[in-house]
Amino acid sequence: MPRTAPRRAKLRVHLENSRKKPAEKEYTLARFKAAARRHPALAKQLEVSVGYDGDITDDELKKIDIMLGVPPDRARLKAVAMRLKWLHCTMAGIDSLLPLDWLPEKIIFTNNVGVHGAKAREYVRMAVALLHTRLPHMLANQRAHKWQQIFSPALTGRTALVIGLGDVGGGAARAARDLGLKVIAVTRSGKASSLADRVARPSQLDRLLPKADFVILAAPNTAATRDLIDARRVGLLKTGCGIVNISRAALIDHGSLCARLRDGSLAGAVLDVMHSEPLPATSPYWDVPNLVITPHISCDDADYTTLTLDAWFANLARLLAKKPLRNRIDPARGY
Amino acid sequence: MPRTAPRRAKLRVHLENSRKKPAEKEYTLARFKAAARRHPALAKQLEVSVGYDGDITDDELKKIDIMLGVPPDRARLKAVAMRLKWLHCTMAGIDSLLPLDWLPEKIIFTNNVGVHGAKAREYVRMAVALLHTRLPHMLANQRAHKWQQIFSPALTGRTALVIGLGDVGGGAARAARDLGLKVIAVTRSGKASSLADRVARPSQLDRLLPKADFVILAAPNTAATRDLIDARRVGLLKTGCGIVNISRAALIDHGSLCARLRDGSLAGAVLDVMHSEPLPATSPYWDVPNLVITPHISCDDADYTTLTLDAWFANLARLLAKKPLRNRIDPARGY
Repeated sequence: MPRTAPRRAKLRVHLENSRKKPAEKEYTLARFKAAARRHPALAKQLEVSVGYDGDITDDELKKIDIMLGVPPDRARLKAVAMRLKWLHCTMAGIDSLLPLDWLPEKIIFTNNVGVHGAKAREYVRMAVALLHTRLPHMLANQRAHKWQQIFSPALTGRTALVIGLGDVGGGAARAARDLGLKVIAVTRSGKASSLADRVARPSQLDRLLPKADFVILAAPNTAATRDLIDARRVGLLKTGCGIVNISRAALIDHGSLCARLRDGSLAGAVLDVMHSEPLPATSPYWDVPNLVITPHISCDDADYTTLTLDAWFANLARLLAKKPLRNRIDPARGY
Repeated sequence: MPRTAPRRAKLRVHLENSRKKPAEKEYTLARFKAAARRHPALAKQLEVSVGYDGDITDDELKKIDIMLGVPPDRARLKAVAMRLKWLHCTMAGIDSLLPLDWLPEKIIFTNNVGVHGAKAREYVRMAVALLHTRLPHMLANQRAHKWQQIFSPALTGRTALVIGLGDVGGGAARAARDLGLKVIAVTRSGKASSLADRVARPSQLDRLLPKADFVILAAPNTAATRDLIDARRVGLLKTGCGIVNISRAALIDHGSLCARLRDGSLAGAVLDVMHSEPLPATSPYWDVPNLVITPHISCDDADYTTLTLDAWFANLARLLAKKPLRNRIDPARGY
């Protein structure tokens, strides 16, 4: 049978992985094929390769049109990846990739915003509820074999201050609403949102922090948010306040936070992020009283790669239709 | 000014306390007066006394019309309290008072159902969320200074089996719904309820237990519920199931439960109730892996006495209006 049209060359897609990441975060050929079966019309236009820790050769890298995952030697992209038109970062937070001076011009750079909100909502519901119930104190009592009743008042009607109102922050705000809390969000613009009872700007933080029963950090880590809750502002937190961080450790001063956890003037903190991850066994943070540490799992579903690949295929459809892609990173803002 | 009507004698109310209970559960004169200010018309008809551990004298007990709290020497009620017409138990669970052979005839006996539901809802949201997130495992890792990422799939759509659907069980069912779970309730009658997707009878438990992602015990402790989840039924729980008990320890076999917590075949258990309370420091339960013990605080608000007294005043209004009281205990059922 004669061909009726010239066959279009397939798009070369490279899945770039890090061996340091857990198996759940690995973009294997098997996982890609499973996603491809859900998007057959798009998938048949692709040719896929998989690599680890930047082991793709220069010869191969030259031919790549789309890359999912950012390789460790980012300078190679500008120097070698001449065909690359779309680079997708499989994380929402790209702060570890800043500054973006390595990014080739005219490349579309996207992140994984949208894949984290639902899980963030679940985590924040847990974290706020356990802080309100004074569970960190009860867990210490359990270790000490001590039965001491601590009763908490109603959670409904308390105030949560949610810093950031993007995908992750939106999940946090929804969680707070699920629990019957009043939500005050803090965003760069201060623009009103249906997710919050009130949206304020960072400049209003000094007045808002002393009113919050819970402070939930959910903003991206940028020059504007780094050390946002510094030692002075940690001092503004009211007695019995609970802290949740599902953003980055850089947003809050850990030294003064731990001092207030040790002296018992806060209900506790639930931190999913640390300055150094994995947190070394020798770190003093492990043993800080009233501190619950979780290993950076707050916003990632066990089916994270599935959710990521489905969102990626949806964006691929937009690329092929020459529509603007979702989750494009603004190099100037850094998110 | 001449009296237009003979002044009615005031009703004598006695507030009976136990020194073993925490200060938050004490019915002091100050707390009663604060409640009285919220119900002035009713309060002016009352004369109030306060006692501890049954220290009221026979002379005084003879004159009491209404008692809030059950004294330790319950036999004295039949023998001495000749005017007593209403006895109110300030707990929801009256299993420690069974059998009710000490109860004088024709006395109205009520319990504190209705005061626990909102708090039970908060607690169950916390407990289910933390079990789903595998927090017991992460807490053990934190103690061992170990960073190990464990990712959980979406919580939405999983199945909670809620045993009991009264005040406390209703709170548990609402909590499960808040988290997006499918709710199967088990009640004596099996009658449909808007709080659950399905209501089953206890006879169906063997088929339901293997399907449950979470089992939440929230039924009263009666002859019918004692050892309801016995060793055989603990064996029916599916791998990764999470257990929450906010009812009484007698409902579930602790030996086989702890065996399954030790071998890691359950996600964990959050138990708010123990056979012996306060749990002695020498108890082996404190150290069972994947077990979170809270000190019987799941259903009690820090403002418990306020909520209790307001509900009690509402019932007093019904008594004075000769309407049937709420929360009357059926001596035959035992709740």
